[in-house]
Amino acid sequence: MPASGYELQDYKAIMYRTHTCGALRAEHIGQEVTICGWVDRIRNQGGLVFVNLRDRYGITQTAFAPEAGEDLLELARGLKMEYVVQVTGKVCARPVGQANPDMATGEIEVRPTQMTLLNKCNQPPVYPSIPELPSEDVRLQYRYLDLRRTAMQDALMLRHRMIKTLRDYTDAHGFIEVETPMLGRSTPEGARDYLVPSRVHPGKYYALPQSPQLYKQLLMIAGYDRYVQLARCFRDEDLRADRQPEFTQLDIEMSFVEMEDILTFMDGMIADLAKKILGLDLQLPLSRMDYDEAMERYGSDKPDLRFGMEIIDLTEFAKTVDFQVFRGPAEAGNRVRAIVVPQCADKYSRKAIDELTTYVKEDFKAKGLVWFKVENGDIASPTAKKFTDEEHKKILEITGAKDGDMILVVADTFDITCAALDGLRRRLAKELKLYDPKSMSFSWIVSFPMFEWNEEDNKWDAKHHPFTMPQPAELDLLDTAPEKVHAVAYDLVINGFEAGGGTVRIHDTNLQAKIFKLLNIDDQTAHERFGFLLDALKFGAPPHAGIALGVDRLVMLFGGYDNIRDVIAFPKTARATDLMTGAPGVVDDKQLDELSIQNTRKEEN
Amino acid sequence: MPASGYELQDYKAIMYRTHTCGALRAEHIGQEVTICGWVDRIRNQGGLVFVNLRDRYGITQTAFAPEAGEDLLELARGLKMEYVVQVTGKVCARPVGQANPDMATGEIEVRPTQMTLLNKCNQPPVYPSIPELPSEDVRLQYRYLDLRRTAMQDALMLRHRMIKTLRDYTDAHGFIEVETPMLGRSTPEGARDYLVPSRVHPGKYYALPQSPQLYKQLLMIAGYDRYVQLARCFRDEDLRADRQPEFTQLDIEMSFVEMEDILTFMDGMIADLAKKILGLDLQLPLSRMDYDEAMERYGSDKPDLRFGMEIIDLTEFAKTVDFQVFRGPAEAGNRVRAIVVPQCADKYSRKAIDELTTYVKEDFKAKGLVWFKVENGDIASPTAKKFTDEEHKKILEITGAKDGDMILVVADTFDITCAALDGLRRRLAKELKLYDPKSMSFSWIVSFPMFEWNEEDNKWDAKHHPFTMPQPAELDLLDTAPEKVHAVAYDLVINGFEAGGGTVRIHDTNLQAKIFKLLNIDDQTAHERFGFLLDALKFGAPPHAGIALGVDRLVMLFGGYDNIRDVIAFPKTARATDLMTGAPGVVDDKQLDELSIQNTRKEEN
Repeated sequence: MPASGYELQDYKAIMYRTHTCGALRAEHIGQEVTICGWVDRIRNQGGLVFVNLRDRYGITQTAFAPEAGEDLLELARGLKMEYVVQVTGKVCARPVGQANPDMATGEIEVRPTQMTLLNKCNQPPVYPSIPELPSEDVRLQYRYLDLRRTAMQDALMLRHRMIKTLRDYTDAHGFIEVETPMLGRSTPEGARDYLVPSRVHPGKYYALPQSPQLYKQLLMIAGYDRYVQLARCFRDEDLRADRQPEFTQLDIEMSFVEMEDILTFMDGMIADLAKKILGLDLQLPLSRMDYDEAMERYGSDKPDLRFGMEIIDLTEFAKTVDFQVFRGPAEAGNRVRAIVVPQCADKYSRKAIDELTTYVKEDFKAKGLVWFKVENGDIASPTAKKFTDEEHKKILEITGAKDGDMILVVADTFDITCAALDGLRRRLAKELKLYDPKSMSFSWIVSFPMFEWNEEDNKWDAKHHPFTMPQPAELDLLDTAPEKVHAVAYDLVINGFEAGGGTVRIHDTNLQAKIFKLLNIDDQTAHERFGFLLDALKFGAPPHAGIALGVDRLVMLFGGYDNIRDVIAFPKTARATDLMTGAPGVVDDKQLDELSIQNTRKEEN
Repeated sequence: MPASGYELQDYKAIMYRTHTCGALRAEHIGQEVTICGWVDRIRNQGGLVFVNLRDRYGITQTAFAPEAGEDLLELARGLKMEYVVQVTGKVCARPVGQANPDMATGEIEVRPTQMTLLNKCNQPPVYPSIPELPSEDVRLQYRYLDLRRTAMQDALMLRHRMIKTLRDYTDAHGFIEVETPMLGRSTPEGARDYLVPSRVHPGKYYALPQSPQLYKQLLMIAGYDRYVQLARCFRDEDLRADRQPEFTQLDIEMSFVEMEDILTFMDGMIADLAKKILGLDLQLPLSRMDYDEAMERYGSDKPDLRFGMEIIDLTEFAKTVDFQVFRGPAEAGNRVRAIVVPQCADKYSRKAIDELTTYVKEDFKAKGLVWFKVENGDIASPTAKKFTDEEHKKILEITGAKDGDMILVVADTFDITCAALDGLRRRLAKELKLYDPKSMSFSWIVSFPMFEWNEEDNKWDAKHHPFTMPQPAELDLLDTAPEKVHAVAYDLVINGFEAGGGTVRIHDTNLQAKIFKLLNIDDQTAHERFGFLLDALKFGAPPHAGIALGVDRLVMLFGGYDNIRDVIAFPKTARATDLMTGAPGVVDDKQLDELSIQNTRKEEN
């Protein structure tokens, strides 16, 4: 679409308008045109009334002069903001000195000869032309008004263009888009399913898909070779700030491929997207890092690589000191790790550091935070006296910290040191503006652990899903040390967020059976949940692999939005409510009767 | 995608194959290649073993000769149909006289030097290479095998290409694709909703959308101007042969438009689709016919215009005859109408005509069927003697029937004459092959009645939906004769099927209130159901209109398929069951507890 807006010239029938509010330029001067739009602004100036009309494509200034007649002028004076009008008039050059170079239509104005009021507008709680916003709840309740704002229209246009670009790229590369069912079977694994009672089969339920995982594997077995879908998915989880009960994923699966094929294809797709949407030239291949390395260097499997501040290990050093806060954990097999926050010693007061300590204690269950500021080539801190001069030197040597830097140390289990230092790293980089918020960092984290230990149920869980292929070189470890087995799994990380991930799938029934056994899923359970997939694997399943990207997240990251709700037309709140429609709502008993269900409890009001 | 299949040359990482099974041509002779695929056919011939490998892109013959070594030959002899293999070898010209011009890869064969068995296959209930099919139930249960058949792969490829073409066209014309929620509010109107119990709000339910109608109107109010979505929609109806509980519609809405704009735009879109998919040049504008005229001429609001056989009215004539079967209904205000079936008198025996009589009685509740054959310029029939010679002449004159034609007459209420003659017309045209089954007919039926009388509830119902604009010239009739008011509504009819339809919407709150009153929807009910839309109309709603096309139906018609399930990857049966996954299924009590619901009845097994 041209930036000037759509010209409506491609078909003959033009009832309401000849041009959009974004289309008129100097070249149209002298033409009679008809435009429609919302009143964005009104100014009475001398005998003139200026009315700016707005639509999706832009804003055009109309100027009602006395020559147009008193009736028309009167009508213009009666307009209010957000009224909808149709104006016919002549395109004129703006008077000398009044052109507006910031406006695409700023060289011209329309001098109306006719105006029709198409619709009025009550006083709206959100004005597109007024930057001050009401609370998000009001914006969500009057979403149709909030969506008039340029920022929201930009977000949805960006979303449209990104999705179109992804579809064009996959189509050009031989992918076929296949729509998979929304009314599927419940396979309680991972998150909670949304259920849909069946009327025709009382006591039975469909489930809305958490992902089209099983269907896309079946499509590979069916020989479709390259599948893509922009798939709506559902998870009935207690929502975090950046989650929605329904979300869209770009879902991809390929046959006769290994991880290398998927990553190389995806690199090309992401580079195409970055180029077309952001004008960015990404260097390919995108960087790749093993999960284990990412945890060591950044404490996270989705490290933000827009800045450094890597984690430094002090464990071996800690074993040599008297300071028990270090030595205790180090000798107990835990870890002592640090980050060096550059050139900030003067920016963090004792009070500010206390706040950081509270943060790592409360958010990550760390036992505490040890800190050193570097001054005149030595360390300064309340705990400085617990170390010898030699040890001071050693700390500076290992961390490489310089005058003005601050060293933050966490001594704890590996997991807690990871979480706390990752949290500190992100928080401090943001506070200290260590990176350009417009910069973008893309990387792959690969080779995740295959299993994670479920403390609660005392068993191994699949870190991805139970159809994930283990690293071929580690197959022998399945029997002896499952915790050491890595999966052929890969996540795309953008700016420290997981933008998506995937795995190579198991296409061998024997290996699949072995994994189920390890996951403590017995034959009957496996058959009940995934019987059709297990059957299908026996009928000539090709080697295959896939990936899914979170589209909402991707749009948010590409657009630089902070809130995922800003890139969704009609989002729900953290309580999964649609404030505009009031969904979910009470339904008629007759509807429940037909579904052979009844409520066991009503919501407390 | 080139017809020869995707060449996999666009990225470097090639693990499993260098070419697809559809890619190799004479130009590749001499190259060493690796291909992967399913064993489509095996022939032992002399000392040679020919194995055809199949993937989505085509079939390539591999020829295992003694020179390849006994081990490889032995491996080839052990292959079974649908095994998955990887073959490396040299591309060779087929021996003289053995090229197969019917096969895209027919000039070459691959002489293997290496083969890896990637997976075995149990004996499948459906073979892609064997034309005989098991029952549809078996095909649905093993859908992943059924989907291997070329006919099914063609259907899904056609679907993909049609959807891509529609998306490209709308994008090029300034439409923005917006995803609307699946978890919405139940607005019991028309068909039954699928409900989704809310866990967070016990006793409350989401509903899956029957269409994004309200959301797309809200997007117009929000100023999005041109909206499109390929939207999944849900209706919990008792299924007819060509319905599915979930279906996909191409959903469109435009602002500042009238019917003329929508039809002209859609004409261009359909012409583009017909050209790109079928190579057809449609003459534009597509023909248009008023609903009233369609009912008079064809007895249907979705007439099949691939053939003539229009309905002829005999009511005035019937009033003048003694024959009470004609005169009675004619004088009672009912209708006597006929079709002339050309050149078939010798093809329909008395017994065959008796069968037609049973058909109109049983399927359409007609009281009977009167028939005349035209012989030697006169009519012949068991009832011929009930008419005078003059009347015989008159019948021939009015109907224009000629020697060899057959006249079929139904005397009944207008509705029954419509239904019965429409049924006869379709059935006989098919039996007599009056049209080329590959021909396509596109037309618009416009100006539908606004209301239809609901006998059961003794009230007016909206024929489309309650937001439909009445014809402006007939607004006065709303108070006096609502049955005479027509809507600004339009249906796209292809080959006698409704492919989609739409309306101009009401954007005026006062008119909307008046329509609700006529439909006996009181303020409170209106507010409960559509409150957010009614509110939104008060905040500057632009004039707007839209349309939705049934994508499954459209693909079926373009592809010439008889069954809508053949253009859906994973369809459900008429009992809304997925025979492959077993959905809907029984769920854990724990899941129901969390949703605060319980079953009131279990399905009889």
